[in-house]
Amino acid sequence: MKFMFLSAADKAEAWREAILAKFPGAGFDIWPDEIADKASYDYAIVWRPPVGELKTFPNLKGILSLGAGVDGILSDTELPEGVPVVRLVDRCLTEGMSEYVLYWVIHYHRRMGVYLNWTRNGTWKQMRQTDTRDKKVGFLGLGELGSDAARKVAALGFDVAGWSRTEKHIDGITSFHGKDGLVPFLNRTEILIVLLPLTEATRGIVNKETLAALPEGADIINCARGAHVVDEDLLAALDGGHINAATLDVFHSEPLPADHPYWTHPKVTVTPHMASLTVPSSAVEWMEENVRLIEAGKAPLNTVDVKKGY
Amino acid sequence: MKFMFLSAADKAEAWREAILAKFPGAGFDIWPDEIADKASYDYAIVWRPPVGELKTFPNLKGILSLGAGVDGILSDTELPEGVPVVRLVDRCLTEGMSEYVLYWVIHYHRRMGVYLNWTRNGTWKQMRQTDTRDKKVGFLGLGELGSDAARKVAALGFDVAGWSRTEKHIDGITSFHGKDGLVPFLNRTEILIVLLPLTEATRGIVNKETLAALPEGADIINCARGAHVVDEDLLAALDGGHINAATLDVFHSEPLPADHPYWTHPKVTVTPHMASLTVPSSAVEWMEENVRLIEAGKAPLNTVDVKKGY
Repeated sequence: MKFMFLSAADKAEAWREAILAKFPGAGFDIWPDEIADKASYDYAIVWRPPVGELKTFPNLKGILSLGAGVDGILSDTELPEGVPVVRLVDRCLTEGMSEYVLYWVIHYHRRMGVYLNWTRNGTWKQMRQTDTRDKKVGFLGLGELGSDAARKVAALGFDVAGWSRTEKHIDGITSFHGKDGLVPFLNRTEILIVLLPLTEATRGIVNKETLAALPEGADIINCARGAHVVDEDLLAALDGGHINAATLDVFHSEPLPADHPYWTHPKVTVTPHMASLTVPSSAVEWMEENVRLIEAGKAPLNTVDVKKGY
Repeated sequence: MKFMFLSAADKAEAWREAILAKFPGAGFDIWPDEIADKASYDYAIVWRPPVGELKTFPNLKGILSLGAGVDGILSDTELPEGVPVVRLVDRCLTEGMSEYVLYWVIHYHRRMGVYLNWTRNGTWKQMRQTDTRDKKVGFLGLGELGSDAARKVAALGFDVAGWSRTEKHIDGITSFHGKDGLVPFLNRTEILIVLLPLTEATRGIVNKETLAALPEGADIINCARGAHVVDEDLLAALDGGHINAATLDVFHSEPLPADHPYWTHPKVTVTPHMASLTVPSSAVEWMEENVRLIEAGKAPLNTVDVKKGY
């Protein structure tokens, strides 16, 4: 069995080690230098392949994404037809994302930023503590990552809702869906977490209109994709005071350009796209399961619908 | 029914409102100004009463503590005999403490402090993400607060252990107990949370010897009492590098004195005893339940063993 690996964003050697631990004796060649006979590869492990590159490998049985989002696969608009594209589901990626979300939800609920600004300057002062059950948290996106984080936030007692394209039923989560559900969802959301896939329908979904639909003083956490947010609209809502604060892990251009106003905005916290990273040693378990399914002539799990875009 | 209220640390008017909502028509007098006939009071709601003051109220049926810790009650070494002392159990206090613990556990596990120092200075850089299941978190104290926090940290996938005076059995938590269990517990604990009651046996429990028993690079979160920590030993362990960092919410003297080295130590985060505060509107539910029990001639819940000190 032969794997080809193509990603500028991932550590190829860590993946080689993880894959060979699961598939002893397999081939693992890194694109482009190690690629020889393109017809010899069974599986492509990829992130952001050059458009049209994968279709030059004629015998691929599966394309395994290196990210939970699939925009880094579907950016190749000439994917080979008939080859299943498998979205990555990594236990560590899911757990890490929920940790990040919990951290910032607690941060805003308990006003940790205000406290830490005070104590950094030697000020000892307490604020009234409010009941967790009165705090309304909302998830834009209830996929693999959004639903895990929503469940864990709800388990702490927060009043949690979620919005998704189609209706979802998750115990303990109030569900909104579709175009009609968006404004009612936003109207009740005091802490908004963006965990949507990036599609043409969700690009720029955090904009002037949707920000205005949030209650005064809402906080925003974006750990999906930078293009979900219209930056100038968010900056205006922060400066105008309607939005209290934002934590942003993802940006239109990454690394965030040095002159971008987010870096120094007093109401913005920047994190360097670290909300959750794939851990090869755990992610490879999922790849192994899918390769076994494909080799057995079965359909792999979590395939991407190329037409829908997720 | 008449209540007397005595605390310099709590907001008397918020308590008056909460108590009168549960006991319409009851009396609620604030010590010392509103106290008239000492024989007329049924219940004392108190924190840090002057030594000997409560025994001058001859007809008390119950002493209701305003804190989860009881050191602020037992500091009155002349409590009236035969009057049950009830420890506060406040849903919001418990939930708030677990939020604080989760926040700092995630903070250290995901190295948020390092990331935020970087991004505050415009640096975009990622670190390798590690598996949550490999991170060993340890709770000194598995009481009402410690066990709730331990369960919630374990639910995220962390490898959680706890140490207590007597053996405890909590699903998913490795349990250590007694003098013999302390060093083995510390040896495996990478993030240590102190949530013990303050007694003569636990005063100064975080000291040179116990700090040395933690693995190199351990992090410490103290949200119990300042007197659990020998400050000079902790500072030495931080300066020597054996301990990576500490978040401290409680101190020998509060507010933390302006010249205390904790305020400016680069490895110490100070929070102003806000890890969790009592929320009168929820705490009063517990008081109501206990008053009803006492009025019905039954034993109240969560009474304090004055001799044991917790």
